Amino acid sequence: MVDSHSNVEPLTLYTAKICPYAHRVELALEEAKINYTRYEIDLQNKPDWYAPQVNPASKVPALAAGGPTVQPDKPSPQSHKIAESLVLLEFVADLYKSLLPSNVIERAKARFFIDTVSTKFIPALFGFTWKGESAEALLKGIEAFQGLLPTHEEGKFLAGHSFTIADAALAPFLARMDVTLKNDCGVFEEGAGKKVYDILVSDPAYARYRQYLSDIKARDSFKKTFDEEYVTEAYRKRVLANRTKQPPNKY
Amino acid sequence: MVDSHSNVEPLTLYTAKICPYAHRVELALEEAKINYTRYEIDLQNKPDWYAPQVNPASKVPALAAGGPTVQPDKPSPQSHKIAESLVLLEFVADLYKSLLPSNVIERAKARFFIDTVSTKFIPALFGFTWKGESAEALLKGIEAFQGLLPTHEEGKFLAGHSFTIADAALAPFLARMDVTLKNDCGVFEEGAGKKVYDILVSDPAYARYRQYLSDIKARDSFKKTFDEEYVTEAYRKRVLANRTKQPPNKY
Repeated sequence: MVDSHSNVEPLTLYTAKICPYAHRVELALEEAKINYTRYEIDLQNKPDWYAPQVNPASKVPALAAGGPTVQPDKPSPQSHKIAESLVLLEFVADLYKSLLPSNVIERAKARFFIDTVSTKFIPALFGFTWKGESAEALLKGIEAFQGLLPTHEEGKFLAGHSFTIADAALAPFLARMDVTLKNDCGVFEEGAGKKVYDILVSDPAYARYRQYLSDIKARDSFKKTFDEEYVTEAYRKRVLANRTKQPPNKY
Repeated sequence: MVDSHSNVEPLTLYTAKICPYAHRVELALEEAKINYTRYEIDLQNKPDWYAPQVNPASKVPALAAGGPTVQPDKPSPQSHKIAESLVLLEFVADLYKSLLPSNVIERAKARFFIDTVSTKFIPALFGFTWKGESAEALLKGIEAFQGLLPTHEEGKFLAGHSFTIADAALAPFLARMDVTLKNDCGVFEEGAGKKVYDILVSDPAYARYRQYLSDIKARDSFKKTFDEEYVTEAYRKRVLANRTKQPPNKY
């Protein structure tokens, strides 16, 4: 159920297909079936109006909410501008209540899961993919969130049978990790990504992770918002640009 | 108004007077006038049962919610254990709705304020106090949250006339910064803390900050939860222990 929210419409999301943080908000908006205008920002070549008129931090995602209906590249000073992906996930959950559980304990668990993703998994994933850090740390990061998931019988998703913002916070990073590993596409030594991929697809210790990734990928919201070919190509280019600059991974 | 929450009582907060993260939750619980048992954890000498039975990360704050009434040092396996200060602030706001605005845009602003405190102010404060980083960065961190406050006429606190979890997220760090600066108590060069203090108490650029700190200090919730003498003494000891190990601040 979408709450009445006349003062927040129309909604324009400034986003970028490459960006996992922006992807979080697209997933949540799609799950909530909220009408919004999607506007792609070229992160390599941001329009001049973006920082002064939408997000002073010059990052995606950012949302313009309310005010008159305008072209996305001519934002109205009358709309509210909201930035930061986790702030935006809570905003979407405020509009569309079923994106968080109703029970206060379960809501706290969902937010603790997001904290675990932010502090334990994402740094390990970026560390492995772009900074030459260890595969062991990445596997530990995966175990950290996997350990908080219910059994598949109890529910596909973090909070049970319903998809929540906890899943939206994680899914974009899993999708990009999958691209990194199966295409062996990062600053690590050749074959190091594929080696982790082989562990993740076969080791019984990661069975719950595998099932979760598969359940995420089956969502319409995910199919609509993730362009795997585009992300793969962009990662390949980034690796080529970085290959001469970065130390190889020790794995 | 406190929502019905029979499955979360009794509440036990594991906390420590020195810890600003734990202080956040004490402030929110006091503002909400929720009954809870306060249990002090000695962070230098944590009880053996704490990590296995309350918080595997072995940090404060942590909350035990629900289950039978027990001694805090004999936690029941039947209570829900919740950790991480920002997760706990949202939990308290879920129980006591007026700790967040009701309007969805205002709620997003409160959460963006918390994000600014977490990413711009706290790292600059810790950097200056304990790592020999610059006073300029600290002043920029103060300006970052100050710039989001309404004018005093519009409201004392971030969200206007009511104290919210955004204020609870910031206040403990302001209180500790005040101790650091006025006692010149950090790993910086002698006099560097006092110099920042003098700027903050006199420069018109920080007038809104000064008013805000004064409004925070006037709250009963603050008076009840901040032991200035204790924190000052602990900081002095920490500085003595660090003085030989850390580089002086360049300020």
